Amino acid sequence: MDAVDQTTIGIEPLGRAARNAARALARLPADHRDAGLRAAGAALRRHAGAIARANERDLAASSANAAFRDRLTLTPARIDAMAQGLADIAGLPDPLGRTLAEWSRPNGLVIRRVPAPIGVIGMIYESRPNVGADAAGICLKSGNAVILRGGSESFASARAINAAIVEGLAEAGLPEHCVQVAPGTDRAFVADMLGASGLIDLIVPRGGKSLVTCVQAEARVPVLAHADGLCHTYVHAAADHAMARRIVVNAKMRRTGICGATETLLVDAAAAPALLPPLVAELAALGCSFRADARARAVVDTLPAAAPGDFDTEWLDGVLSVAVVDGLDDAIAHIARHGSAHTDAIVTEDPDAAAAFLAAVDSAVTMWNASTQFCDGGEFGFGAEIGIATGRIHARGPVGPEQLTCFRYQVIGSGQTRP
Amino acid sequence: MDAVDQTTIGIEPLGRAARNAARALARLPADHRDAGLRAAGAALRRHAGAIARANERDLAASSANAAFRDRLTLTPARIDAMAQGLADIAGLPDPLGRTLAEWSRPNGLVIRRVPAPIGVIGMIYESRPNVGADAAGICLKSGNAVILRGGSESFASARAINAAIVEGLAEAGLPEHCVQVAPGTDRAFVADMLGASGLIDLIVPRGGKSLVTCVQAEARVPVLAHADGLCHTYVHAAADHAMARRIVVNAKMRRTGICGATETLLVDAAAAPALLPPLVAELAALGCSFRADARARAVVDTLPAAAPGDFDTEWLDGVLSVAVVDGLDDAIAHIARHGSAHTDAIVTEDPDAAAAFLAAVDSAVTMWNASTQFCDGGEFGFGAEIGIATGRIHARGPVGPEQLTCFRYQVIGSGQTRP
Repeated sequence: MDAVDQTTIGIEPLGRAARNAARALARLPADHRDAGLRAAGAALRRHAGAIARANERDLAASSANAAFRDRLTLTPARIDAMAQGLADIAGLPDPLGRTLAEWSRPNGLVIRRVPAPIGVIGMIYESRPNVGADAAGICLKSGNAVILRGGSESFASARAINAAIVEGLAEAGLPEHCVQVAPGTDRAFVADMLGASGLIDLIVPRGGKSLVTCVQAEARVPVLAHADGLCHTYVHAAADHAMARRIVVNAKMRRTGICGATETLLVDAAAAPALLPPLVAELAALGCSFRADARARAVVDTLPAAAPGDFDTEWLDGVLSVAVVDGLDDAIAHIARHGSAHTDAIVTEDPDAAAAFLAAVDSAVTMWNASTQFCDGGEFGFGAEIGIATGRIHARGPVGPEQLTCFRYQVIGSGQTRP
Repeated sequence: MDAVDQTTIGIEPLGRAARNAARALARLPADHRDAGLRAAGAALRRHAGAIARANERDLAASSANAAFRDRLTLTPARIDAMAQGLADIAGLPDPLGRTLAEWSRPNGLVIRRVPAPIGVIGMIYESRPNVGADAAGICLKSGNAVILRGGSESFASARAINAAIVEGLAEAGLPEHCVQVAPGTDRAFVADMLGASGLIDLIVPRGGKSLVTCVQAEARVPVLAHADGLCHTYVHAAADHAMARRIVVNAKMRRTGICGATETLLVDAAAAPALLPPLVAELAALGCSFRADARARAVVDTLPAAAPGDFDTEWLDGVLSVAVVDGLDDAIAHIARHGSAHTDAIVTEDPDAAAAFLAAVDSAVTMWNASTQFCDGGEFGFGAEIGIATGRIHARGPVGPEQLTCFRYQVIGSGQTRP
């Protein structure tokens, strides 16, 4: 049996243990945390067989479809990638041991702003069991304890992965309970996590929209979440058309199911007659279908008409909404009305138009002459990411180790009292 | 009648108007926003008479006690201070027009992290009507629109202040609806604000514990709040006793009702016999009373015994909990168990002990040889503060204009597509 008696274990004991572990972890030097990550990676490799067997049990018990089973499956290569991921995270710069700002006051007080771990992270994720290992790595790197609750279908896999990680951490002398997994698959534990004010400091949901929406609706703890990725690529009148075609094809078709995929193409009226026909042909040849407004259909009359709501739809598929706009302000207005403030790009050779777009479009990521699919922690150089944040506080865009920290102040005096 | 028909106005129209105003505001240069703040300050001075008359109506309608009435009262000096506050905020550095970080990737992409306003702030506060003007100033400075909901008793005052501010902002050409007040005193509007996901990006409650607790329990929108301020001053064995006495007296007695006031004194066993008797006498002479543990009472036998829970109590009064501890680790453990992670100080001449304390105590503010009463945006040099944050994400400690921003990314390419 992998599960313990679920009636006896709620979030309370895990949360208290995590708090103590987080406090101890925050006091450890970076090289000690990194040694723990490397030891955990080595333990994952050492226990690859046990992890694979646990994963087989999960697969045997699952009646899910092929795509789901693929996400659930841990091949030897995937287990090795998990282990390598922890080693890679160990090699990243320390997000903590720095001074973010320091200044002195007229009374002689010196004030320092320093990074601080958030504390205890609650990670709720779906089918891919490797997400738990990645999340543990990023949380530990940034000095946070983590409580992991993966999908019920991957419960045995998650337990086996966690056992290996915990063994590695213990070898390196890291605090027990830095990384814990939910004691069972009871959904009440998720509700417990979401309500655990004071025990969990931040919930990070990672999965489909229904999971994220549910977490956002129920949580009494702050949530760092990725909601929608309704990304736009806007081809400005002064765009290089060859570059625009390359970027749009990549932004839409490289991978259609990721949140940074472009869902809507906006084309300047001045550029549309020359750009749209070859671009549509190129995309169509790759299997893309279209939902076009009347002005785009006036340029390419084979394009199917967009229905109401199409410009508010995150397709996550080989489908592209297409609209013709009247210049920069019209494009910006379209994005403000229909976008999800995730990633939006302009293609132009005009630096003033680009600067105006980058300043005016208030998305987590705005891009100039690049594919929206670059919105990714690895591509940003963060080494690892736990997701893309689409909220408006704490952190926006790819969330790496640095974004799982906050800050606090150290004030150095020489006996000052406040008048 | 100051109130409009409350049955017809919920958060929706105000939220939509605020979103549009926020978008326009975010695109304005800093000197335009600052001109708006100065014009709003001038309008407050110009309409001081109307504001005072509205305030008299509030006072006439109120049956509250003297302390409450004092907080509610807008004297000419207080109205002038509000106006000056806006002018002062205009003079602060721009929190937006900067690059926080910039790096380039091997593929040539240049990535820039830039500050971004949060968007629409919902401010819920209690009796002091000037809080609304201060909040409006800090929000505008940081490019945010704000919806203000003050206490019902100060409704006429809040409307009059807002009318003046809006007039000033309009003169300077700032977007209409940058600053709005609740249309009435209906409590349902507060519930509306707390549930306004997508319309309000951050709720800032400012007031007593019951207000903050209620907001935190009900809000579906992120909250930046100040909960408890159970601050400690720890006198280490290597403290200068004269300095320790000065600091403790100031930290406890300068103002006893503020969140940065010290509530618990921890004294090293080695320092207690020489320090406690004169310190207790000095505090007692200022009207302070005590709740002491057995070890402190063994040193000063006239100290009253602490009851269970006293070390978990934020007195906000001339009361000091006193405990004797066995060195640094014991002090750190006491603070971890009983503290509220607000502000905690060590008094010592030993820099190693100070460094260990500053590193290990995970409070929003830790201090060395200074009074905990310095935890304040003004004292930190922020110019103005909207409160002290005691949560663990986004911002901790004093919240000034810079803390009412987040960040976003600008990616500059030259046609890159993702492999």
